[in-house]
Order: sequence, then C-alpha cells, then structure tokens
Amino acid sequence: MSNEELRRFITDVADFPQPGILFRDISPLLRDHFEATIGALDRLLTESEWDAVDAVAGIESRGFILGAALALRRRKGFVPVRKQGKLPPPVVNVAYDLEYGSGVLEMKPGTGRLFLVDDVLATGGTMAAAAELCTRAGLSVGALGVLIDLHLVAEFKWRDLAVRAAIDY
Amino acid sequence: MSNEELRRFITDVADFPQPGILFRDISPLLRDHFEATIGALDRLLTESEWDAVDAVAGIESRGFILGAALALRRRKGFVPVRKQGKLPPPVVNVAYDLEYGSGVLEMKPGTGRLFLVDDVLATGGTMAAAAELCTRAGLSVGALGVLIDLHLVAEFKWRDLAVRAAIDY
Repeated sequence: MSNEELRRFITDVADFPQPGILFRDISPLLRDHFEATIGALDRLLTESEWDAVDAVAGIESRGFILGAALALRRRKGFVPVRKQGKLPPPVVNVAYDLEYGSGVLEMKPGTGRLFLVDDVLATGGTMAAAAELCTRAGLSVGALGVLIDLHLVAEFKWRDLAVRAAIDY
Repeated sequence: MSNEELRRFITDVADFPQPGILFRDISPLLRDHFEATIGALDRLLTESEWDAVDAVAGIESRGFILGAALALRRRKGFVPVRKQGKLPPPVVNVAYDLEYGSGVLEMKPGTGRLFLVDDVLATGGTMAAAAELCTRAGLSVGALGVLIDLHLVAEFKWRDLAVRAAIDY
C-alpha cells in the first residue's frame, strides 16, 4: 500500500486534546493496516542504512508501537526512550521544553547505532531531546523517522539530520 | 531460545520504583533478544487459537512494545489500551484500583477478538480492568498473556480466563 493510500485511514479529530488542535488519529491504521504501516516506516531507510543500524529506539508511548514492530520486522533490538521515573537506575536523562511547561526523557546507557522513531513530528522538540539523550547515553543516532510529519516548522533538523516521514501534511 | 534462557537476561533491581519493590527490568531482553522474546509470547497461543484472533491489544506503555511486535509477527492488527486522556473521542473507559489511588484506562470502540497482552502480571488489577474495558468497547477477549508472571496472587483469573505467561517467578 502506498503512503498516500495509508493516509486515507488516518482520522482527523478537531479540538483534541485542546481547542484549536486538529488531532491525526492513527488508530484505524494500527487496527486495520498495521503491516502496511510498518512497511512504510521500513522504507524510510535503504538496505545499506538498515545494515548499519543496531536497534530501533521508540519514544514513549506511540513511538513504542511503531518502533517495536519495526525492530521486529528488521530483526533489530528495541530501545525505549521513556518518560521520567519509569526506568530503573542507571539512567541518563534530558530536560526539554514543551508547549506548556517542560518534560524529562530517560533511557538506559548503551552502545550502538539507532534508528530513532516516533509517531508524529510537530515542533520537533521531543525528537531533538530524544536524539540528544541517545548521544548522552552513549548511543549514536543514524537516522530519525516518523510516520507523520505535520510540517509545523520549516525543515526541522537535529544537528545535520533531517527527519524522514512516511506521510506529510 | 527457551523461556528459561530468556529469563537470564532479565535484570533484578532492588527498591525500584519504591523501597521494598524488586523490579524485573526487561531492557536487556528488548535490546539484545527482542525476536526471541516476541517468539516466547507467540508460543502462548496455539496455531488454531491464533487463527481465531483478529488483533493484539497492548496495555500502555510496555504492553505496547510487546503487543505491537507480536501483532506484526502474526500479521494481526494492533489495538492500544491507553491511559486516560490520550485517545480522541469516541472512547470507552474503565476505572480501577491501584495500590495507591486509582487509574482509568481507555480504548476506542471496536469489534473482533483480541489477544490482550502486557509485560508483567502483578496483582492482576490492570489486566482485569483492561479485559473488562475490551468487552465494554465491543471487543471480545480470546486470551490474556504476559511476558512475566510474578505470581503475587494465587491463580489470577478474569472471568474464566487464566493469564498465560512466558516466564514465571
């Protein structure tokens, strides 16, 4: 299934989670077209790029769904990037700004090269914080990927890395 | 890899998240033996039981990691059981008691037969609430599965269903 066909199964929900926000709900994709959805993420890297990746990292929580299935498909390890307080010590953390207030992401120290995955790219703040965290934890970030790029910011990059998206809005 | 071999890659962390609690950390399994871990969950159902399942449901957040990868392996859909406020309307919810206070789980209304999956069975409160929620949402629960059963309660069941576990403590 093409990325454009997948897009037809994303439901727009107005005013969620707050008034004025248009939420892109991927529930129907996960339920009815899960294999095709993960296939679209798989195609974000070339075969030689996949060969150079040791594990897929997913950002809690929807990044877990996509990242874990992608890791299994490619026979890679899975590394969770979690919200604060969920992982036992030792952990490495990073604080970052959210639209209202701030958040903290944590992960276990490790080694190897990651494909860092989340569901949606909005401002890019969470993705940048997660990528920074991976490097602090000893891992390298080979590529950044999302299912959906909302294009709220022009040409988001972390260091020299652009974010690859299966579906653009 | 046998279930007993998988168990050797679970790390025990004392006093996390609270004093007196022994935390079973599956991070090394996810990172280094992910395919074998998902294979162990796959074996919890027979082939004919898998044939009767439409989708795998995972409980947020670690149940997402295991459930989504399992769904992909079996070419099934994935259905998230989420914490309150994460899913756009329409949602169905259930309140349940936690050790301290209470929680609310939510999911989208749907149809079909589920294999409901989480990482760890402790008291069974979350699993029972999630199973109840699935039925309220219009779905049926064909089986309950976890990676780890801590056996904190004797013979936990939801209705007539026992929980199948790959690894027992």
